[in-house]
Amino acid sequence: MMKENKYDDQEFFEAYGKMERSQKGLDGAGEWHELQKLLPDFQGKMVLDLGCGYGWHCKYAAVHGARYVLGTDISKKMLEAARTRNPGPSIEYRRAAMEDLDFQAESFDVVLSSLAFHYVKEFEPLVQNISRWLKSGGSFVFSVEHPVFTAYGSQDWYYDENGDILHFPVDNYYLEGRREAVFLGAQVTKYHRTLTTYLDTLLQNGFQLLRVVEPQPPEQMMELPGMRDELRRPMMLLVSAVRR
Amino acid sequence: MMKENKYDDQEFFEAYGKMERSQKGLDGAGEWHELQKLLPDFQGKMVLDLGCGYGWHCKYAAVHGARYVLGTDISKKMLEAARTRNPGPSIEYRRAAMEDLDFQAESFDVVLSSLAFHYVKEFEPLVQNISRWLKSGGSFVFSVEHPVFTAYGSQDWYYDENGDILHFPVDNYYLEGRREAVFLGAQVTKYHRTLTTYLDTLLQNGFQLLRVVEPQPPEQMMELPGMRDELRRPMMLLVSAVRR
Repeated sequence: MMKENKYDDQEFFEAYGKMERSQKGLDGAGEWHELQKLLPDFQGKMVLDLGCGYGWHCKYAAVHGARYVLGTDISKKMLEAARTRNPGPSIEYRRAAMEDLDFQAESFDVVLSSLAFHYVKEFEPLVQNISRWLKSGGSFVFSVEHPVFTAYGSQDWYYDENGDILHFPVDNYYLEGRREAVFLGAQVTKYHRTLTTYLDTLLQNGFQLLRVVEPQPPEQMMELPGMRDELRRPMMLLVSAVRR
Repeated sequence: MMKENKYDDQEFFEAYGKMERSQKGLDGAGEWHELQKLLPDFQGKMVLDLGCGYGWHCKYAAVHGARYVLGTDISKKMLEAARTRNPGPSIEYRRAAMEDLDFQAESFDVVLSSLAFHYVKEFEPLVQNISRWLKSGGSFVFSVEHPVFTAYGSQDWYYDENGDILHFPVDNYYLEGRREAVFLGAQVTKYHRTLTTYLDTLLQNGFQLLRVVEPQPPEQMMELPGMRDELRRPMMLLVSAVRR
C-alpha cells in the first residue's frame, strides 16, 4: 500500500517551512492554545508522537518531564528538521509510516498525534493498535482536520463571481476515503472520515472521551490575513481520550 | 423569555402531521434504526422525555418495561396527539417548556430527547439540570439537528442555475444562536450550536459519552425521493451518555 509522504517533496517541504506554525513552532499554531489544555501531565511518562513533523510536541513533552519520547514520521526531511530544531536527550526520532509501527502492549503512557491522521487511509486498525500500545489509564490526544473541512475535497471556500467568499461547501459527507486537496499550492492526498468514525471508533475500542474541541483562533491572531474567516467553518477537531 | 412553540401553529402542525415520521411513527423516522441501538434497557426505569411530540418514544419506553414515563412538550397540540396516539397507564404527558422544568435530584434513570434541543436557546443550563435530575449511572440519550445542518441557517442546499444541488453550505459555524430556517414551508426559529458545545458541555458536566453517531438513512428508505442526497451532508447527531 502506498502511504502518503508529501513532505519529502522538496518544493512542498519548503512551502511548509514558510508557514507560521513551522517558523514559530507551537505558538505559531492557531489551535495550540486549545490543544495545550487537553494534554496530560508528562512527568515521568513514556510518550509516542505519531506524525511528529518538526518535533514541536516531542520537545514540549520532554521539557515537561517525559521520561522518553518517541517521535515517528514517514518523512525523512521532517525528521531531519526535527533532529536539528527539537533535539533532546530523552527524545528519539524514528522514520516509519504510523500504519507500520508495532510495539509491545502497554508500552506508552501517552500517545499524541497532531494533524496527521487525515493522511492515513484506515483509522480503526490504527486506533486498535494505539489502544493496545497504551497502558490502562493512558492518554490519547490528537488533532485532525475536521470532517466539515475534508468532506468536499478541495478544502477551499465557495466564491461568488467577484472572488468573494460565499460559504464553505460540504458534500459527500458519508463517502469516506480519498480526497485530492490543494494545500500550499500543491495537490495533496488526504482521507475524509465522518465525525462518527473519529469519535465512535474510539468509544468502541476501549477509550473514554475526556474532551472534544473545535478550536477557534486565539484573539491575538484574529488580525492575521484570513483569520476571521476561520470563524465561518470548523477546520480542526481536537480529541482527548483515556484508555479504559 | 419567549420559547419556541411553532407546533401550536395550526398550519405547521398539520404539515408536520403529513411527514413520514408522523404518519408511521418510529419506523417512519430515518434515524430510528440507529437511535434504537443507543437506548438503554427500560425495564423498571423512571423515564423523562423532553420535547416528546407525538409520544412515540414514551410509548416505546413504556412498552419496554419502564415503570413511569413523563413526556413533556411545549405544544398543546402535540400533547393532544400524544394522548390520543400513544397513551399508556405508565405514561404521563405534561405541558411545559423544558427550560422551565424542575425536578428533585436523581428523579430519573433515563432522560431522552428527540430532535428538540435545537429549539432551546441555552444548552448548558439544561444539561446541568438533566445531570442533576438523573441518578448516578443514569442514561441520557438524545438526537438533535447536526451543527453542519444548522450553521448556515436556511437548512437548504446550494443550487446551480438549473435548480440542481451543488453542495450544502456551511457558514457562521462558530456564531452560535438564532437561525431562521424554512421547515415544512414555514419559517421556524432554531438555535445553532457547535459540536463542541453539544459534546464538550456533556463531558464537562458529569457525563461520560457512550456513543456519538451521525445516522445514515436505512437501505430500505434509500429509494424515497431525496433520500440519497442525505448521504451528502449530515443532518442529525445522536448521542448516548451516562451520568457519572
